Amino acid sequence: MTRVHVWGASGYAAAEAIRLLDGHPLVELGVLESRSHAGQAVAEHFPLLRKLPYRFSASGSLMAALGSGDVVIAAGGHGEARDIAPAMLAAGARVIDLSADFRFDDDAAYGLCEWNAAQIRDADLVANPGCYPTATLLAVLPLTLAREGVAGIGTLQRTIVDAKSGITGAGRNPSVGALFAEVAGDIRAYGLDGHRHQPEIERIFAQHAIDAPLTFTPHVVPIARGMLVDAYCVFDDAVDADAVHALYREAYANSPFVRILASGQTPSVAAVVGTNDAELRIDVQGSLVRAICAIDNLGKGAAGQAVQNLNIMLGYPEETGLHARAVCA
Amino acid sequence: MTRVHVWGASGYAAAEAIRLLDGHPLVELGVLESRSHAGQAVAEHFPLLRKLPYRFSASGSLMAALGSGDVVIAAGGHGEARDIAPAMLAAGARVIDLSADFRFDDDAAYGLCEWNAAQIRDADLVANPGCYPTATLLAVLPLTLAREGVAGIGTLQRTIVDAKSGITGAGRNPSVGALFAEVAGDIRAYGLDGHRHQPEIERIFAQHAIDAPLTFTPHVVPIARGMLVDAYCVFDDAVDADAVHALYREAYANSPFVRILASGQTPSVAAVVGTNDAELRIDVQGSLVRAICAIDNLGKGAAGQAVQNLNIMLGYPEETGLHARAVCA
Amino acid sequence: MTRVHVWGASGYAAAEAIRLLDGHPLVELGVLESRSHAGQAVAEHFPLLRKLPYRFSASGSLMAALGSGDVVIAAGGHGEARDIAPAMLAAGARVIDLSADFRFDDDAAYGLCEWNAAQIRDADLVANPGCYPTATLLAVLPLTLAREGVAGIGTLQRTIVDAKSGITGAGRNPSVGALFAEVAGDIRAYGLDGHRHQPEIERIFAQHAIDAPLTFTPHVVPIARGMLVDAYCVFDDAVDADAVHALYREAYANSPFVRILASGQTPSVAAVVGTNDAELRIDVQGSLVRAICAIDNLGKGAAGQAVQNLNIMLGYPEETGLHARAVCA
Amino acid sequence: MTRVHVWGASGYAAAEAIRLLDGHPLVELGVLESRSHAGQAVAEHFPLLRKLPYRFSASGSLMAALGSGDVVIAAGGHGEARDIAPAMLAAGARVIDLSADFRFDDDAAYGLCEWNAAQIRDADLVANPGCYPTATLLAVLPLTLAREGVAGIGTLQRTIVDAKSGITGAGRNPSVGALFAEVAGDIRAYGLDGHRHQPEIERIFAQHAIDAPLTFTPHVVPIARGMLVDAYCVFDDAVDADAVHALYREAYANSPFVRILASGQTPSVAAVVGTNDAELRIDVQGSLVRAICAIDNLGKGAAGQAVQNLNIMLGYPEETGLHARAVCA
Repeated sequence: MTRVHVWGASGYAAAEAIRLLDGHPLVELGVLESRSHAGQAVAEHFPLLRKLPYRFSASGSLMAALGSGDVVIAAGGHGEARDIAPAMLAAGARVIDLSADFRFDDDAAYGLCEWNAAQIRDADLVANPGCYPTATLLAVLPLTLAREGVAGIGTLQRTIVDAKSGITGAGRNPSVGALFAEVAGDIRAYGLDGHRHQPEIERIFAQHAIDAPLTFTPHVVPIARGMLVDAYCVFDDAVDADAVHALYREAYANSPFVRILASGQTPSVAAVVGTNDAELRIDVQGSLVRAICAIDNLGKGAAGQAVQNLNIMLGYPEETGLHARAVCA
Repeated sequence: MTRVHVWGASGYAAAEAIRLLDGHPLVELGVLESRSHAGQAVAEHFPLLRKLPYRFSASGSLMAALGSGDVVIAAGGHGEARDIAPAMLAAGARVIDLSADFRFDDDAAYGLCEWNAAQIRDADLVANPGCYPTATLLAVLPLTLAREGVAGIGTLQRTIVDAKSGITGAGRNPSVGALFAEVAGDIRAYGLDGHRHQPEIERIFAQHAIDAPLTFTPHVVPIARGMLVDAYCVFDDAVDADAVHALYREAYANSPFVRILASGQTPSVAAVVGTNDAELRIDVQGSLVRAICAIDNLGKGAAGQAVQNLNIMLGYPEETGLHARAVCA
Repeated sequence: MTRVHVWGASGYAAAEAIRLLDGHPLVELGVLESRSHAGQAVAEHFPLLRKLPYRFSASGSLMAALGSGDVVIAAGGHGEARDIAPAMLAAGARVIDLSADFRFDDDAAYGLCEWNAAQIRDADLVANPGCYPTATLLAVLPLTLAREGVAGIGTLQRTIVDAKSGITGAGRNPSVGALFAEVAGDIRAYGLDGHRHQPEIERIFAQHAIDAPLTFTPHVVPIARGMLVDAYCVFDDAVDADAVHALYREAYANSPFVRILASGQTPSVAAVVGTNDAELRIDVQGSLVRAICAIDNLGKGAAGQAVQNLNIMLGYPEETGLHARAVCA
Repeated sequence: MTRVHVWGASGYAAAEAIRLLDGHPLVELGVLESRSHAGQAVAEHFPLLRKLPYRFSASGSLMAALGSGDVVIAAGGHGEARDIAPAMLAAGARVIDLSADFRFDDDAAYGLCEWNAAQIRDADLVANPGCYPTATLLAVLPLTLAREGVAGIGTLQRTIVDAKSGITGAGRNPSVGALFAEVAGDIRAYGLDGHRHQPEIERIFAQHAIDAPLTFTPHVVPIARGMLVDAYCVFDDAVDADAVHALYREAYANSPFVRILASGQTPSVAAVVGTNDAELRIDVQGSLVRAICAIDNLGKGAAGQAVQNLNIMLGYPEETGLHARAVCA
C-alpha cells in the first residue's frame, strides 16, 4: 500500500482524484492539503463525495507528513507546483503534477501514458498532460508511426484541431462565464487569439517530428464533464485508408483504455464520462485523415490519467482502480 | 414618449428590462447606470443584447440626467435603492424598485399588478414584488375573495408552498453554487432555515386577512429562467370545487397575463419563459386546494412585471411592449 | 457465485442493473433477454456500457438457461412480468421485479430494503418499489415508529408529497414529451389527475397504520437521473423536534445507504446520483414535519435497490457491489 | 396584408414560423394545415404558443382556402412538398419550402437571402436553405468575391466544416437518440458516413466556382436551438488578413442580420438564439482562413430566413417582423 497525497485539493480534478484514489485497492489516501478549505470536510464541498470521511488539511501539513516513497498528486493552480515540487522530490516522494508547470520541462516525464510509459515508469516527476493535448495527441500521434515510410501515407502538411469541452475545464473558481445561466443553451468558441494548450501540443508534435502548422479552436458546450476533439490531418497526397487504420490498431494494441470504433459507431462523450477511456474514430477522405477522440476531461484528461500514471510508476496493472463504469444517463 | 432609466443595470433582471424597454413603443430608453460596467457596451456583457447600441453609464450620470416625469427602474442589489430613491423622487421622477428595499414600506405601492392596480396607478414609488411572492400570491390570493363568506369555502388553516426556480434568481454575481457544473444534473432544496421571501409573502397574506401558518421551501433546478410554485392550501373543511374555480375566474377575468388552465392542461415553465404570463392550475382534493403557478422569474417575477407596473403608472394598456412570445424550444 | 439474469433488458433501469451486476464481486451475469434488441450488443445501445462484452438474447433464451438458485431481475414494462414470473419461480429461480406488477400482491415481498429486510431475506418474489414510493416512504415511515405513543408526536392528519424527478423515470420509449427540446428549460407538473404511484404509497402507508389523506404531485425537471421528494406531514398538534429527530436516527441507525443530514446541510440529487444512497433532511415547524429525500431514481429508486434486495436475499453484506461513488460533476 | 399559410405545421420550424408570423405586422395568418394534429389547438402542442388562438386544419383545407397572391410556408417532411407545391403554384400562390425538396431544383430560387435577393424577389418558389448550409455559406462565400483576383488571396484548396448543432435539427418525431436522457451530458459526432447537407453545400459552392474538396462533420450538443459552424478554408498561399476582412465587410455591408465580430469578441449561440441574426468571426493564420458562424437553426437556419424570404418576395423591409430579441438567459 503506497501512501498518496493530494496537494491543492479543492478543484474538480482534485475531487475526481480523491474519488478514484478512495476506490483504488492498492493505495492509501494520505493528506489532502487545501489552503482555502483547510479544516473542512471534503463532504461539504463536493456533493458526490458526501459519504467519504476525509477532511482537508492546512498548508504545510502535506510536507510535514511526507515520507520517502510516497506519491503526491499536485492539483494546484498553474504556477503553484513549481515552487513546492522540488521539496517534495527532495523528501523522497514522487510527484504527478496536473498543472502546466512541468509540461515544458525536460526533467519531467510527460505523462501521456499510451506513448511514454517507459519514461513514466522511472520518473520521479510526471507532468500530467492537459485535457486538450491528451485528446489531440491520442488522435494524431499514431499517424507519426508512418514516418519511417509506410506505403500510402505521405507527409503531414497541416493539422486543424476543433475541440469541444465541458465547462469543468475552466475550473471551480467562480466567474460569470462559467455560471449555469451563461453556459446553458450556448455554444461558444473561445481562446481565438491563443490558448495555453496550443504550444503544449506543438511541443509534443515536434518531439514526434511533426512540424506542420497547427490550428487549434476550443469551444465550450453545455456539459459539465467530457470533451470531443476533431483532428483534421491534411497530407500532401491521397492516403491509404487501410494503412492508416493499421497504424491506429498497432499504436493502441495493448492499451486497455483506448477504444477504436468501427465504421458505423460514433464517438460520444457519454461513452467515456466518468472513466479513463478514450474513444477514437478514424476516417480517410482523399488526402485528409479525420481522427475524432472523446475523453472525460476530468478522467483521461486529468485525474484518471494521473491514476494511470501512478499505476505505471508503481508497477501496478494500468487499470487498477480505474475499472468502474460511471452512470449510464 | 416617457423617458425610462435603468439604475444598477448589470444583472439579469436589468438586462431583461433593457430588452423589454428597447421594444416598448411608448417609452424612450434613458441612462443605463452601472457602477461595475461603466463605459462598457451592453452588448459586451449580454450576448442576446449584442445588437443593441446601448452603453452603461457611470455612477451619478442617471441623477444628472433625471428629469421630472421620468421613470427609473432600479435594479441594484438589495439595500442599494433605499439610499438613492429619495433623491430620484425629489427630482420629480417615479421609481419602480426591483429589490426588497421597499416591499415592507407602507409609503410604497406593492407592485403586484393584478391585485394592486389602483394603488400602483397613483404611486411615485413602486416596490416590485419578489419572484416567489409573485407566483405564490397569484396562486393563493383568489381564495381570499371568499372571506366575506362564499358557500363551500371555509377557513384557511395552513399554506405549504413548494417552489422550484431557475438559477438566475441567484443573480449574476459569480458563486460556486451557481456554476454550470454545480447546477446541471442537480435538484437542490435551499433556504431551509429561512428565506427572505417568506416574510414578504406573509406580509401580503396578512393584508388579505390570511393568518394561517406558511411553510415555504424553495428549490433550485437546472434551468436558467422560470419558476413553478405549488401552493397547497389546507382548509378546515371540504371545499367546493366549483366555488373555488369561480373565485379564480373572477379574480383574473380582466387580467391579460394570467391564464387559468383547464383540467388536462399542465402548467409548464416552457409556456411562460420570456413572457410576462402566469399559468395557473387549480385542483381541489377534499379540504385541500392545490394551486400551481408558473412564471418566468425574470419576466412576471421581475422585469416583465416592472414594465407592467410602468404601463399602469403611465396609463398605457397593460400589455404594451409585453406582447412578444419568446422562443419555442 | 450466483447467476443473475436480466429479463426485459433494454430500458434505463435494466442498463443500470447490468452496470451494477457487472461490477458485483459475488454474482455472475447470465442471460440478458430483450425482445427488441435480441442479438445486438449491449454496447451499441448504451454508450456507457460500450466497454462491456455482453449481448442481448432473444425471447425464450432466459427460461431455457434458467437454473434452480438463479436470480432474475425482471425489468420489463408494466404488465409483462405477471405472465412470466410464475414459470421462473417454478424453475427454482428467485425473482426481483422492477415493474408495478407485484407491488399490490400479498405473495410478493415489497422490496423496500430498510423496512422489509426480514421478509425480503426469505422471499422468492420481490416487488421492487417504485421510485417515488421509495423516496416518499423513506421520508415518512420513521414517523410511524411513534404510533405506540411517543411523547410529543401526535396523530398524522395529512401528507402532502411534492416530488421532482429526472426524465429517465419516463423510460426509454421515445415520446415527444421526453425529447431533449421539450424537457430542457422546462419544469412541468404532471399526473395531476392521478399517478400510478399514489395507490402504491397509500398501500404501504396503510400497512403502517397511516390512514391520513395523501396529496401527491409529481414534476419533471431537466435532469436525466435523480429525484427529490418533499414530504409535508401535518399533525394534529405541535410536534417535538427532538423526538422526531430521534425517530429518524433510530429508523436508519443500521442502514448504510440512508444519510440523515444535519441542520445547515441541504439535500441534493448531485449527492446521490449514480449511487444507492438516500439523503434525508428533517425539519419541524409547529405541527408540521417536512421530510426531504433525495435518491437516484435509477439507483435506490430502481436498479440499486434491486441489487440491495439481491444482496439481502443471498445473505451478502448489503453494500456488496454498491460502493462506487459516481462522477463528481 | 398578405395571407400566409403554413403547410405541415406540426414541427419545430413550423411552430417558429407561426410565432414569427403571428407577430408580423404586414401579414395575416391563414390556414395551419397538419395531418397529424388536425382539429387540435396549436396551444396544446407548443407550450410557448399557448396564448395564441390558432388551430390546426385537416389535410386539404389549405388548398381549399388558397387564393392567388397568398404565400405558403411549406414545413412538411422531406419529400412531401414535391407533390403539393405545383398545385399551390398553379393556384397563384407563392411557396417557400423549408424541406430539401427543391434545393437542387433549378426552377426554384435558393433562398439564401444575403446572396440571392434578386432571384428571391421574383421567385414563385423559394427553396429555404438547410441550417448547416446557411451557416456554412454565410461563413465561406465572401471569400469567393476574391475570385476575380484580389491581391493577397489565392486559390481555395480545401474546406473543412466542423459544425455543432442543437437537437431540434433532428425534428420533433420522437426517437431514442433525441431523448433528453440521451442528449444531456453528451457531445456526439454523427453523419460520419455522409450527411444530406453536404451535397447542398457543394452545389452552392460550385455555383460560386469553388471546386475544392469539402469535409463536413456535424455534431449534436445538448442545446435545443442554435448552431455554431467553424469553417476552415485552406488556401494555396499565405492570405492577406486585411484583404479578407475587407471582403467580409463588403459582402455584408447592407445585411441587417449579419454581424461581423471584432477581434476580442467571440461568436456565441446565446447571442443569436430566437433571432434571425448570424454572427461571424474571421481569423487568418498563414494560408488558412477560419470563419466561425453562429445562427439559430430554427431562426436564420429555418423559419427566420423563411420570413426574411417572405419579406423580400413581398417587397417589405427585410427586418419586418424579425426585430425581437429573444430571452437573455
